[in-house]
Amino acid sequence: MGLARRVAVVGAGMTRFHHRLHLEKSSRDLFVEAAAEAFNSVDKGFDRRDIQSLYVGNFSSDAFEHQCHLGALMADWLGLTPVPAVRIEDACASSGVAVQLGVIAVASGAFDVVLVGGVEKMRAVSNEVVTDTLAMASDQFYEASVGMTFPGLYASMATAYFAKYGSGWEDLAAVAIKNHHNGVMNPKAHFQEEIMDVARRQGAQRGYSFKDELEFLRSPLNPYVAYPLRLYDCCPVSDGAAAVILASEDAARRYTDTPVYVKGLGQASDTMALSSREDFSTLNATKIACKTAYDMAQIDSKNVDLAEVHDCFTIAEVLATEDLGFFPKGTGGKAAVEGRTAINGEIAVNPDGGLKAKGHPVGATGASMVYEVFMQLRGNGGKVQVDDAEIGLIQNVGASGGTVVVQVYGR
Amino acid sequence: MGLARRVAVVGAGMTRFHHRLHLEKSSRDLFVEAAAEAFNSVDKGFDRRDIQSLYVGNFSSDAFEHQCHLGALMADWLGLTPVPAVRIEDACASSGVAVQLGVIAVASGAFDVVLVGGVEKMRAVSNEVVTDTLAMASDQFYEASVGMTFPGLYASMATAYFAKYGSGWEDLAAVAIKNHHNGVMNPKAHFQEEIMDVARRQGAQRGYSFKDELEFLRSPLNPYVAYPLRLYDCCPVSDGAAAVILASEDAARRYTDTPVYVKGLGQASDTMALSSREDFSTLNATKIACKTAYDMAQIDSKNVDLAEVHDCFTIAEVLATEDLGFFPKGTGGKAAVEGRTAINGEIAVNPDGGLKAKGHPVGATGASMVYEVFMQLRGNGGKVQVDDAEIGLIQNVGASGGTVVVQVYGR
Repeated sequence: MGLARRVAVVGAGMTRFHHRLHLEKSSRDLFVEAAAEAFNSVDKGFDRRDIQSLYVGNFSSDAFEHQCHLGALMADWLGLTPVPAVRIEDACASSGVAVQLGVIAVASGAFDVVLVGGVEKMRAVSNEVVTDTLAMASDQFYEASVGMTFPGLYASMATAYFAKYGSGWEDLAAVAIKNHHNGVMNPKAHFQEEIMDVARRQGAQRGYSFKDELEFLRSPLNPYVAYPLRLYDCCPVSDGAAAVILASEDAARRYTDTPVYVKGLGQASDTMALSSREDFSTLNATKIACKTAYDMAQIDSKNVDLAEVHDCFTIAEVLATEDLGFFPKGTGGKAAVEGRTAINGEIAVNPDGGLKAKGHPVGATGASMVYEVFMQLRGNGGKVQVDDAEIGLIQNVGASGGTVVVQVYGR
Repeated sequence: MGLARRVAVVGAGMTRFHHRLHLEKSSRDLFVEAAAEAFNSVDKGFDRRDIQSLYVGNFSSDAFEHQCHLGALMADWLGLTPVPAVRIEDACASSGVAVQLGVIAVASGAFDVVLVGGVEKMRAVSNEVVTDTLAMASDQFYEASVGMTFPGLYASMATAYFAKYGSGWEDLAAVAIKNHHNGVMNPKAHFQEEIMDVARRQGAQRGYSFKDELEFLRSPLNPYVAYPLRLYDCCPVSDGAAAVILASEDAARRYTDTPVYVKGLGQASDTMALSSREDFSTLNATKIACKTAYDMAQIDSKNVDLAEVHDCFTIAEVLATEDLGFFPKGTGGKAAVEGRTAINGEIAVNPDGGLKAKGHPVGATGASMVYEVFMQLRGNGGKVQVDDAEIGLIQNVGASGGTVVVQVYGR
């Protein structure tokens, strides 16, 4: 894939992701909050009337808020009317795809400056409705209607992966421990507590005493959700929004002297039903999307300094770090155990805490990854700053890998 | 708006739109049927593996079929995996916007050949659920939650229009009579019966005798839905799908010697709630979108030979023909009465029967308009062929005008 002109990120914002903080806000409030932060983040100032088009990623405000047509709605609430406004739905990759379409639109010459982002307000309904709604991203006929939900789908991947590579659940636990550790240092994260601190707090309440994280994570306080995945292998259900301002290379200079360029883009699809695939221990769409993105960026996996990957379940981070080429198949879990994916390890994976600790308001997740990469590449990563970060990547997954987006960013 | 390269339509297909014919099909069956017809329509043959990306417009398969993630799903069912696949939701303009994004993507250089289209499977749920689902396209807080539905919103426009311009309901009736007349000649149309034939048939069943359409349309057999709109002022609830193949100018030559070019594109948003607007008797987003499209195509309204406009209610066609510049404000209804919008009138408006008679599976409607324009501009309009059709236009509206797409096509 080659684009007719270069595109840069010139600003980004996001709300904190949380399950309780935003109870009185709707998706319009959340998206406006994120967009306003993006506008204010622009170095040389930004007038929102410069925005020529809007791309909003959202999974199912339909089911969560009985509200569709979020493109026009957000344009209205941001005071952007009459700009063209679009809502994109690609399951949990909705805003990764929204960013992709925004980049393509700027590259086409149709627009010079666009706002892209995503939002999900999930906590207005019961947990049962959340699970049932998320299951709409799987194949209704062959998965959801026979009782398969996403923890079950990713548990099937974990089981297949363990069988094939002989690794075990302890490797997954290392992902959770790392991501909670990173989340503690990220003021936007949903969970800001080390797993060992959770173990002490919950242990004290329930009369347990844990010598380390693994003892806690193996205990009844970390129950199975879908074998072999336990509670701390699953990301939380969060409310939140994220927004990013994209500009053509020429337009970007008006806003900042330190733009972050989109160097590579890739997107791929896979079968809707997991059962249609030959191998559950890999996401083929990740491999294809990252090859496209690496080729366009003229890099390979070794050049990536930090990666925001889609750890909706811990197994998903392991698969991602392998499918993106950071580690050979079968060794991604071990790499996490050995600290090679820590903030200043070999490659920083999910320095912001990932979906596991940062949270996962599904439609906002892809854009929040771009937010983090933008901050990191400009040296504004705060306590989770990766040293000498020059190339950052996002991998945003829809459903069980039916959609995968990979984007490479650099200075 | 200027695009980096020209884009052409090289094939198109659609299912019949209907309320009963597709009861045993789901949206995946319908979309595959439309896409297969599009593949088979390509003059020099078409291999579906040439498709590099997929854009699917769909309003709320979430509510209608408990199924999201239609991009990946349709790629899978069409055998297109692993191409990038996207679902677009912009209310009833979903597939008009999907076409727009497909054109922009080809223009950007990202892809040479893409499939765009839309689908809606509405008849798997009760009429009450349909009405409630459609209301999600309006503002949930300020409209839907207080009982406003789409017939009510468009009835408000009709009332405001009548008050401002002194015209009346008989002007709207002329739109319905014309569109049913056109639908009789369109084998894809939901309704294929003249209103006078409906009057005779229903009159005989219920002991009425009607001397003309207006007497029938004023009778209890055409009850009020929302004053002043009666049943025959409203489009039906249909199942259906439509698909269009877009190619870069260079790629198009491989497929046909008679491509239809995208000459102009426009899209605009307006306030989500109708009540936030100063004037209910016009859709401002139509005016803005068509100015953008006309400017890009370097034409004005006088150059348009046929227009597919969004007559979800008869008043909407009247507003469209005025806002697109075909007739001065206040005279669009009279133009329909005088036959100036008939197939070989001054400008053919909705030669395929429009939403009123062709039907309105909401996510499929915009792409079905492009289908009709493509057929007409290649002289394949069948019994509804417009003589010497050189420039065709589509106007696809989301909700009460919160989104409007206008596209100009030519040879």
